[in-house]
Amino acid sequence: MSGTPHLAIDAMGGDTGPETTVAGVAHALRHDPALAFTLFGDEAILAPLVARHKAFAGRVGIAHAPEVVSGEEKPSAALRRAKKTSMGLAIAAVKDGKADAAVSAGNTGALMATAKVALRTIKGIDRPALAALLPTLGTHDLVMLDLGANTECDARNLFEFAIMGAAYSRIVHDIAEPKVRLLNIGTEEMKGTDVVRDAAALIRSAPHLPLQFDGFIEANALGRGEADVIVSDGFSGNIALKTAEGTATFIGDLIRRAFTSSLRSKFGFLLSRPAITLLRQGLDPNTRNGAVFLGLTGTVVKSHGSASAVGFANAIAVAAKLARARITDRIAEDLAQTRSANVDTAA
Amino acid sequence: MSGTPHLAIDAMGGDTGPETTVAGVAHALRHDPALAFTLFGDEAILAPLVARHKAFAGRVGIAHAPEVVSGEEKPSAALRRAKKTSMGLAIAAVKDGKADAAVSAGNTGALMATAKVALRTIKGIDRPALAALLPTLGTHDLVMLDLGANTECDARNLFEFAIMGAAYSRIVHDIAEPKVRLLNIGTEEMKGTDVVRDAAALIRSAPHLPLQFDGFIEANALGRGEADVIVSDGFSGNIALKTAEGTATFIGDLIRRAFTSSLRSKFGFLLSRPAITLLRQGLDPNTRNGAVFLGLTGTVVKSHGSASAVGFANAIAVAAKLARARITDRIAEDLAQTRSANVDTAA
Repeated sequence: MSGTPHLAIDAMGGDTGPETTVAGVAHALRHDPALAFTLFGDEAILAPLVARHKAFAGRVGIAHAPEVVSGEEKPSAALRRAKKTSMGLAIAAVKDGKADAAVSAGNTGALMATAKVALRTIKGIDRPALAALLPTLGTHDLVMLDLGANTECDARNLFEFAIMGAAYSRIVHDIAEPKVRLLNIGTEEMKGTDVVRDAAALIRSAPHLPLQFDGFIEANALGRGEADVIVSDGFSGNIALKTAEGTATFIGDLIRRAFTSSLRSKFGFLLSRPAITLLRQGLDPNTRNGAVFLGLTGTVVKSHGSASAVGFANAIAVAAKLARARITDRIAEDLAQTRSANVDTAA
Repeated sequence: MSGTPHLAIDAMGGDTGPETTVAGVAHALRHDPALAFTLFGDEAILAPLVARHKAFAGRVGIAHAPEVVSGEEKPSAALRRAKKTSMGLAIAAVKDGKADAAVSAGNTGALMATAKVALRTIKGIDRPALAALLPTLGTHDLVMLDLGANTECDARNLFEFAIMGAAYSRIVHDIAEPKVRLLNIGTEEMKGTDVVRDAAALIRSAPHLPLQFDGFIEANALGRGEADVIVSDGFSGNIALKTAEGTATFIGDLIRRAFTSSLRSKFGFLLSRPAITLLRQGLDPNTRNGAVFLGLTGTVVKSHGSASAVGFANAIAVAAKLARARITDRIAEDLAQTRSANVDTAA
C-alpha cells in the first residue's frame, strides 16, 4: 500500500473546480504512475472529464457526491452535510481506510472542521495544525506551522506543533534532527508572551526528541534558511504568511511600475525577461502548493483555491509523499517516546 | 512655541552614534530652519561635531550626559541610569517642558520603559503603543500600531490604539475621518480571537469618534491602500512589520541573483538601472524612518538604529510635525469626547 498510495480527491473544490482538479490528477499521474485515485463529486460532470484521459484507466475511479461545500459556507453548516459533499466523502474514505490521504482545494475552515471530526487527533495531540512549505534563501524550503487552524494556542499546543513539524521536516528534507525554532518578537530568552517562553521550556525539557531546538526566531529572518521548522500559534503564523504574500505582490507591482516608467526601462525589462521569469518561478505559490493538516489520524492536504492544475498536482505530490512516509505513525511514535521519557524522568 | 518646536535629541543612540545624529540634525535644520535642538550626550564628542556646522549657531545647544544606554541593555537597567544617560535626559527635557519632543535611535525597549515612567500615559489611556508609517500602493502611507510595545493586549487597549492611530492619521494625512481597520486572520465578523472581536464591538459603539471604522483587514492587504490606520496587538504587529521587511530583503536578494544569472540579464539590469533605483527608493526604510510612542503625555520618536543621517532627519521631521500639531492634546480631546458620549448614553 505505502508504495502505491490511493488518494481521495475532492474534485469539486477550488475556484475553478473539476476542470482544474481533473487536469491536476492527470499531471500528477504522468509524474508518478504508481498513484491511484478516487474522484469525489458530481458524476455527470466528472465522467466526461475523466473519459478524456486514457492513462486514467484502472487508476482513477469516480465516487458520486451529490453536494458541494461552497467557499463562503460556515464550517458548522459544511459539517452537517458532510455525508453528501465531495469534501466530506473524500475525508470519509481516509477514515474508512479506503484511501491513504485526501486532497481538497475547497473552503479551508470547512475542510479543517470536517477532517477534525471525522479523523480525530492522534493520541497525545490536543489540536491539529496547518503546515506548509515556504521558500528560503537556504538550501531548502522551510516547514511552517500553525498557519491558521488555531487562533489561540497554549504552550503545550506549540510543543506538539514542534513534534509534528519536525516529523514533516524529516520526511521532506531527509534530515535526522531538523532545526526547530519558535516565532517570537525577539531572540532573547525573556522576549515575547508567557506562552512562547513556556513552549521553549517544554521543548528544551524533551532532549530525546528527534529535533534540534534553536530557540526563538524573528519574523524578518523567516526566509533566511536558518531553520528547518518554524512554530507559531495560528494567528501569528497566518499573519506572517499573508504579510509575506502581500509584500511579494506589493513589490511585484512596484517592479512593474518601475520597469514601465521609461522606454529605456522597458527595453531593459525585455532583455531581462529570463531573469524575471526565474524570479517569478522562485516566488510562484503553485510550486509550493499543498498545506497539510498535521496531528490527525489521517492525512488531509489543502490545495490553494486558486491553484493551477500544476499547483493541484503539487498538492497531490505532497499527499503522496506523506502517505508513503506514514507521517501519522511517525508523529505517534515521537509522542510515545516523549511519554516514556517523561515516565523515566519521573521515576 | 508650536510653530518652532524645540527638540531633545539623544545624540549618542543608534549603531553609528553622534556622527549620524549630528549630521541628521544638520539635514533637518536645512529643510526646516525654524527648528531648535538640544543634543544630549558626551560634550567632548559632540562639541567638535557641532562646531563644524555654522547653521547650528543659536539653534543647536549641547547638554552633557555622562552615560549612554547600550543596545543590549535591559530596560530595567537603563531605567535605573536614566538621570545620567543621553536617552534619559532627552526624555526628561520633554517631561520638564524644556523640549516639545524627543528623538532617539537607541535601544527600543529602554526608550519605551524610560518614556513610560517619565512621561506617564495620557489620562484614559492604559498603555502607549508604537506607531509607524508603512508604504502602500495607495495615495499615501499607512499608520500602523502597535508594532511591539505591548506583547499582549485586551480589547480596550486596541480601542485606545484606534483613537491614537486616527489622531496620528489626521495629522499626517490631513483626513477628517481616517479609515481604521483591525488586523485579523479573516474579514468575516466571527473570525479571529475574542480580543479582536470585542475591540471591533467597542469601536463600533463609539460612532462619535473622528474616524471611520471599516472592520477587519487581512495581512495580505496591508500594502493595498485600503486603510489609513491599521490596529493590532504588539506581537502580531511586530510580526507583520518584520515579515514585510524580511520578505522585501528576500525578494531583493532573488532579484540580484536573477539579474546576474546571465550576461543578457546583466545588460538588461544596467539598462533598467533607473527603474531599479526607483524601486529601491520606494522601499527605502530611511524615507519612512521615525516610529512614535503614542499615548504618553509627551512625544517620543524612535529612529531605526541603522538609519542614515537622512533617515534620522526624517525621524526629526516626524517629531516636529507631531509637536506642531499637538498630538498629545488631540488624543486627550478624543478620549474626553468618548467619556462624555458614554455619559450621555448612560443618562
